[in-house]
Order: sequence, then structure tokens, then C-alpha cells
Amino acid sequence: MQERILHYLKKSHGYISGEEISHHLNISRAGIWKNIQELRKHGYEIIAVPHLGYSLVASPDKLFPFEIKFDLGTKIFGQKIVYYETVHSTMDEAFELGVEGAPEGTVVCAEGQTKGRGRLGRSWASPKGKGIYMSIILRPQLSPSEVARLTLLCAVAVSEAIKKVTGLEPAIKWPNDLMVDNLKLAGILTELSAEVDQVKFVVVGIGLNVNSSTSQLPFGGTSIKTVLQKSFSRVEIIQEILRAFERWYERLKKEGFSPVVHQWKELSLTLGRRIRIVDPAGTTEGEAFDIDKDGGLLIRNDMGTIVKKMAGDVVVVR
Amino acid sequence: MQERILHYLKKSHGYISGEEISHHLNISRAGIWKNIQELRKHGYEIIAVPHLGYSLVASPDKLFPFEIKFDLGTKIFGQKIVYYETVHSTMDEAFELGVEGAPEGTVVCAEGQTKGRGRLGRSWASPKGKGIYMSIILRPQLSPSEVARLTLLCAVAVSEAIKKVTGLEPAIKWPNDLMVDNLKLAGILTELSAEVDQVKFVVVGIGLNVNSSTSQLPFGGTSIKTVLQKSFSRVEIIQEILRAFERWYERLKKEGFSPVVHQWKELSLTLGRRIRIVDPAGTTEGEAFDIDKDGGLLIRNDMGTIVKKMAGDVVVVR
Repeated sequence: MQERILHYLKKSHGYISGEEISHHLNISRAGIWKNIQELRKHGYEIIAVPHLGYSLVASPDKLFPFEIKFDLGTKIFGQKIVYYETVHSTMDEAFELGVEGAPEGTVVCAEGQTKGRGRLGRSWASPKGKGIYMSIILRPQLSPSEVARLTLLCAVAVSEAIKKVTGLEPAIKWPNDLMVDNLKLAGILTELSAEVDQVKFVVVGIGLNVNSSTSQLPFGGTSIKTVLQKSFSRVEIIQEILRAFERWYERLKKEGFSPVVHQWKELSLTLGRRIRIVDPAGTTEGEAFDIDKDGGLLIRNDMGTIVKKMAGDVVVVR
Repeated sequence: MQERILHYLKKSHGYISGEEISHHLNISRAGIWKNIQELRKHGYEIIAVPHLGYSLVASPDKLFPFEIKFDLGTKIFGQKIVYYETVHSTMDEAFELGVEGAPEGTVVCAEGQTKGRGRLGRSWASPKGKGIYMSIILRPQLSPSEVARLTLLCAVAVSEAIKKVTGLEPAIKWPNDLMVDNLKLAGILTELSAEVDQVKFVVVGIGLNVNSSTSQLPFGGTSIKTVLQKSFSRVEIIQEILRAFERWYERLKKEGFSPVVHQWKELSLTLGRRIRIVDPAGTTEGEAFDIDKDGGLLIRNDMGTIVKKMAGDVVVVR
């Protein structure tokens, strides 16, 4: 009922009378008052003026599913949202939901993570209320070797969404980082559950530093606020990410991977550079010259041999 | 304590006196008697003769972890065994244990499954007490695209183990079936949890029809008992599977995939045949002429094009 009252308050840009809410939601005036009090406890600023009614003045800076879903306009992404004040890791929660059969587009988000993680079990700093820590369940018809495509697709979508809300356009460092001025703004983590030739589900995780201060970030990291000297609504950014992600995901299904690669190349910091890459197989050095159909990075080493990498730590060699 | 008493009974091939057990295990004679009674309830036939002591005459036909571990002699495989009388699916249980960090070699086995499954969510008939339904957790340093190797490796190990215990040597139908007289004796299911380039863990499942009667098997299936007209100890077969699997797995680490492929080819029903294969991408027909380094099947179609498949339903075309 709180959500439904909030919906009315949001829809009416000025005041809405208790009578009107009472009529539409079939709830007593006393019932409305009780719910308004509850909403205020959650941080909503609602003023009540005799003869005019209620008006929503400000919403709290929280990732409540209702806030994200409001006017979201997607078909799949974010139709189901699981929200935590604090969680070990949204990846672990989403993975568990995936095993239990949660539908495609299910989102797990949290205000803060106590064990936020990146690739290969590395940690991801997740100060409470400052960033976006969210994982999305996908159920694509892909083989395990094609799943890296989704990392690239997500990077393109998140960069696009950030640009739309803030004007800032992050560049992409292969495979999974969004960068501004060579500092890390966001990371993308892709994990999968699969049979040998068929993915069961994929969890794509996004860690994005929005309003974090420099002291809350690890060395080499940055936030939107640090760069633009201004705070932004995390809800608005999440909404744009879900919209952009859905748009690109639908496009992948219809047109294949090449539009993604095309856009990815526009944003790439890695292609055309001489790089050194470290992965479990060892170190490779050479020119990063292309992305292949699986999302792998193609490197031409000094022997002229072409090496393909699916992930790893890239350093640009000067 | 029951297990420790059982251990003594097994080790002493004739009688062992209560006094001796009492001395070694620091337990009263009354305590021994109580435990012997418990063991009898579990189906152990133990006789007690005055002045001689106790003697184990027969063990129940159950997959108790203690039975499997007795004289097993492996280093990793089966060091931890989770046993169920009945379970939905040993795959699901093992996957959950994998997420929770269970060590490599952990085995989940059950007398019966209510939702036993094969590739692509198909069902696997799992009559209680008649077959081997077991899943093993592995943590190999492989990329997701290399995991199919483990299906082939497991097929080789299980065929070897069956031969050792029963004399019957099943052939392998690519990718995951063990066959006798063109009837399915066993199936192998490989599932994984991974990052884009690095497996977190793999669960290899084995469904093997041991003492099942024809009426308990689906059309096209067979059991060891059906073929040889004789029942076999499932514990003994599981032990041989764990030993053979560990041996081949260690060999994979040291020598790479080619010894596996070599042995696999010896047992293959698929190579050198004209086949039709159906997978999510469609139907391919041609000559199955080789296995590649990832465990994929290479097929030369009528245009002379070489197609690689990682999994699918194979029909030999005559």
C-alpha cells in the first residue's frame, strides 16, 4: 500500500487530496496517514497541507525497487528486483537466484557490499550509499565460450547510460573496466553456470563509483562525483543502465555481435595499443589489433603470431 | 564409533574378540554390543560366538561413505563423500556444495534420485539401490571452452573401471554415453560454474545402471546385470571409478589431453562413422573424423567443410 500511495504522489506533480487517494485505493483517511508516516520514516519528505492534501517534496537517496521500477519502461530488465541494504556480494545472491530458476532480467542490488568482488576473487570497494552494486541474471542461448560477448555488451551499455545521465562518456579498457582519465570508474564481472555447450544462466555484475569520495576509493579508482564535482541520482543511472542494457541485448539477439563490437571499438582504450597481458597462461606482449566474434582480444606478438585472449590484466606498454 | 568398530571387523578376516576391540578403541564391552546392534540395524550381518568374538559375515548393499572409503587409496577423489538415501539430483547438491567452496574430489552419491537428470534437463531413470548416481566436484585450471575434456576423460575412466570389476568393456558414444550392444549403460553430465576465462568449479555426474532390471530402464537402456546376468557390488564399482578418474585426472594435469584422446579413440563408437548431429544450432551431417584439443567432435560435411561440435545428439547414419 505504501508503494501505491507513493505512486500517486509521484504521478501528481503538485498536491493530491487525501480524498482522492482514499477513493482510488479504497483505503481510509486514517490508513493513508499511517502509510504516509511510514514513508516518512523511510526518508520520503511528504508535506500535508489542509484543503490541498499531500505533496512529495523529496525522495531518499536509496535504491528501493519501487524507485527503480517507476517509469522504467523495460520489458525484461528490472521487472524483478531484489534489494539489500547490505549484502556480502550481489554476485553470490544473483548466482543463487539463478540456480533456483529466477527469470531473465532479475536484478540484485545493494546499498553496500561487505565482500564485493571483481575478477578472480579480487575485492571491489563498495561504500554504502555511494555506488551502484548490482547483478543481473541473463539466460541467453549461448555456448560458454561466447559469454565474453556479454561483458563487452554491458560495457557499451553502461558507458552509454552514464553519458546520458551525466554527460561523461567513459572509455573501455578491455575486457571489463570503464575508465575516465585512465582511472577506473566501473568494473563489470561476468559469471556463468553452464553445461558443456549451453549456458544455463549468466550473472553480469556492475560496480560503479557514483558519489564516492576519493578517500573511499582504492588507488587508481575514480567516481563520477570526483570527476564532475557533482552528485548524481543512482536510481536514475540504474534505470538508464537497465534500459540501455535491454536495448543492446535485444539487438544482440536480432543482429548478432557486430553492432556491439562496432560501438565497443569506438570507446576502446585498448585497441591499436601495444600491450602486455597477464593471465593464468603467462604473459603476452604485442599489438592489440582486434576483437573477435567471441569477444576475445586479438594480439599480434613480435613473432607475428596472433594470440587470442578471453580475459586478463592489460597494461599499455609505452 | 560404529565406523571404527566396523573398520576392525573388516580388517580381521576371521573373528575378533570383544576384548581386543575394547582395548583398541577404549570402549566398554557393553558399548561394543550396543554399536554392533546398531550396525545390524543398518544391514550388517555380524555373528557373535562365545570365546571367539565377532565376525562380519555380510555388508548391506548400500553406498555408505565408510564402505566407499574403505581401502579406497585415492588422494583427492572421494576423500569427502556426501551420501543420500534419496535426493532430487546429486548434480544439484554437488553444485550447491561447489558454490559453498567444497574441496576438489568431493563426491555426492545417492541410492536413488527423484529428479535425476541428463543433458539439457532430460531425465535420468534412477531406481533406488540399483544404480550408481554420483556427482564429483573438480576445480581444474581450465577455461570454460576446455571443460568438455573432462566429459571424455570421465567416459574413459568409467569404462576402464567397469571393465576391471565386471570384465565388460563399454564403448563410448560421443560425447557422454557409455554403450553396450548399442544400448545405453551409463551417461556422463558435465556442468560448470565459471568466470569468462576461468572455471571456478566443475561437477561431473555419472549415472550408471548396475543391477537394474529391464523393466526399470527406459527404452534403449541396459544395465550390467541385464548384460552379464549377474549382480555386482556398486561400492566396488564406485571405488574403481574414483581410482581410475583420479589416475586419469592427474595424468591430464601432467601430460595434457592427448593420452585421454588416444584412449577415448580406442573406445569410440562415433569416430569414422557417418553421423547426423542435432544441437541448438541445427542439424549437421557428415563423417565424424576426429576429436580436437577441447574435446570437440570434428565432422567433415558433404561440402568438405569441417564443423566442430561440443555436444549434441548423435545418430549414426547407415
